[in-house]
Amino acid sequence: MANPSLLILAGDGIGPEVMAEVKKIIGWMGAKRGVSFDVTEDLVGGCAYDKHGVPLHDDTMAKAQEVDAVLLGAVGGPKYDSLDFSVKPERGLLRLRKEMDLFSNLRPAQCFDALADFSSLKKEVVAGLDIVIVRELTSGVYFGEPRGIFVEGNERVGINTQRYTESEIARVARSAFELARKRGNKVCSMEKANVMESGILWRDVVQEIHDKEYPDVQLSHMYADAGAMQLTRWPKQFDVIVTDNLFGDLLSDLAAMLTGSLGMLPSASLGAPMANGRPKALYEPVHGSAPDIAGTGKANPIACILSFAMALRYSFDMGEDAARVEAAVEKVLADGLRTADLMGPDGGTPISTTQMGDAIVAAL
Amino acid sequence: MANPSLLILAGDGIGPEVMAEVKKIIGWMGAKRGVSFDVTEDLVGGCAYDKHGVPLHDDTMAKAQEVDAVLLGAVGGPKYDSLDFSVKPERGLLRLRKEMDLFSNLRPAQCFDALADFSSLKKEVVAGLDIVIVRELTSGVYFGEPRGIFVEGNERVGINTQRYTESEIARVARSAFELARKRGNKVCSMEKANVMESGILWRDVVQEIHDKEYPDVQLSHMYADAGAMQLTRWPKQFDVIVTDNLFGDLLSDLAAMLTGSLGMLPSASLGAPMANGRPKALYEPVHGSAPDIAGTGKANPIACILSFAMALRYSFDMGEDAARVEAAVEKVLADGLRTADLMGPDGGTPISTTQMGDAIVAAL
Ligand SMILES: CC(C)[C@H](C(=O)O)[C@@H](O)C(=O)O
Ligand SMILES: CC(C)[C@H](C(=O)O)[C@@H](O)C(=O)O
Repeated sequence: MANPSLLILAGDGIGPEVMAEVKKIIGWMGAKRGVSFDVTEDLVGGCAYDKHGVPLHDDTMAKAQEVDAVLLGAVGGPKYDSLDFSVKPERGLLRLRKEMDLFSNLRPAQCFDALADFSSLKKEVVAGLDIVIVRELTSGVYFGEPRGIFVEGNERVGINTQRYTESEIARVARSAFELARKRGNKVCSMEKANVMESGILWRDVVQEIHDKEYPDVQLSHMYADAGAMQLTRWPKQFDVIVTDNLFGDLLSDLAAMLTGSLGMLPSASLGAPMANGRPKALYEPVHGSAPDIAGTGKANPIACILSFAMALRYSFDMGEDAARVEAAVEKVLADGLRTADLMGPDGGTPISTTQMGDAIVAAL
Repeated sequence: MANPSLLILAGDGIGPEVMAEVKKIIGWMGAKRGVSFDVTEDLVGGCAYDKHGVPLHDDTMAKAQEVDAVLLGAVGGPKYDSLDFSVKPERGLLRLRKEMDLFSNLRPAQCFDALADFSSLKKEVVAGLDIVIVRELTSGVYFGEPRGIFVEGNERVGINTQRYTESEIARVARSAFELARKRGNKVCSMEKANVMESGILWRDVVQEIHDKEYPDVQLSHMYADAGAMQLTRWPKQFDVIVTDNLFGDLLSDLAAMLTGSLGMLPSASLGAPMANGRPKALYEPVHGSAPDIAGTGKANPIACILSFAMALRYSFDMGEDAARVEAAVEKVLADGLRTADLMGPDGGTPISTTQMGDAIVAAL
């Protein structure tokens, strides 16, 4: 059987630095676990724009469609802030999501015991927190047409369209219910059905899929504003949350911040199964490109390493190895090793990006 | 000169209960401060639907247009959940906002010293918090056309339209800058200019109004997802936040929850000046109709009373009386009097809705 294939798109800012540490884990998989990956590397975001004038070259897009999984670092930076909308670094990422049809974005918000003090929330509110936001990622207001800035009379008008089809809602709902069955068996769906018709359809379809296919899973519905409140008040009431692209963008970032350790959080974006049975997939840390600390050795590679662990679990059915990587991360944290972002109230031993990568490999 | 006029729309659930306490403050204004209000009362929400088959009767709408200020309690309840979208209780509220053209919704998130322990956030993160979210209230995805659930091919499609004109953005930006000048002189504008063209226009227009008319105010821009994070991480970095209708809905609820005392938070929705120079205005608590505790004496009337204080300040230029009411509330809290929702870690003397109203009048 051919080796599993990976496309690495390290991107901008701290992207290449954290990805360098992931490569150490990939190396360990080959040396100690006998699993070699065919790795290709390419550009996305600002660095792709610098070279090609677009944030994602067509050849890169084609490669992404062929591999078993894409690992992405981060995109963007102040250098690119004034670029036209159509070639901004983010468009590269959005194109990958859309053309690979990665409709289900899994964003775990997990609070690591060793870091519970690090949250702005009280320890008892977040300790042991373990929820997943399933965000629809290829539709909604991110992609709906018409969109643009138009002139009407003597003024400009900015327009975007929120648009969801029944099947788009159904497939992401299924992925949330499937996930819930492997976890706490509980899904909360969030929208604004009290003001948006697209929210009414969302609620109805999620309920229908539940009643027909997943009656064993506990389902509730919540308005997204109440959801933001409840996530802040008592996040442990949730297990799996399913919501649309835009609400998911805000709510998953909010949930990530609850844990107090943004530099720790991975994500997986999954599409339909390919011919080999593996889902189309892209894995990336939740944090951004952090241009302010790029090149200083301060970046935390853990989110990117845990994203690779998600790849092991969801793309390659290597849940055991994923758990090993996760356990190694927990061990290193329990030993008090801390990148700059984790130097909190509890002290700890300050180490650099590369030292963190080495420590995790050593713990493996 | 004619007495200032008020339309009271107590609404559903705990609305009438908390509004009864506001009437005591109105009584106090007449008896002790020599200011009599002409008060009319009418129905909105579910109770209006029960009587008229619509959540806001045309006559009520007409009255709202004539008075100096509208005071609203709360709308909605499980009894109305299955009603058609067009006659749901919320539509009454949305119609008031739209037809009175109340484009600027001020939502203070203030943490009361006596209640700082009550937040799910650490005390040092929220103690002394005092920020205001200025939410655009009459446009965006709440009102944009086309909207609805349509059939395309063999499936349903839910559509809503985010739509902002330059002048809609400009006027709410001005109201945020004006407010900032009376406070910390700092505005942060939030949108998703990295994915939505309407967000690009928003950012550009806010910047233009700033540069031309308010160069003395400190202005920054933030993506709304990062805004949700930063509000959770360190909310005191903000003074005034200005954002659109939908982001404002989520972010202001999030900000409210940070304070830990939702039952305490008022809001003002302001429009253009009327012939008498007063702005069109509606005041309402941030909390909802809380049907689960309606009729039990557990409702906290403070948010509604502080909404009336906002009316004194913004509609009637009685800032001194507003401050008196606010001070009376602080005193009662400092004395340890607590409605059920405020019975937190610090103990306190449990009292009912009416006792709380009486205590505040006594403190005045
Ligand atoms: C970078 C940006 C386009 C993106 C989004 O809005 O989806 C980011 O915030 C995310 O959540 O992955
Ligand atoms: C009741 C509902 C329509 C309303 C809104 O979404 O604006 C509420 O959440 C609010 O924030 O006032």
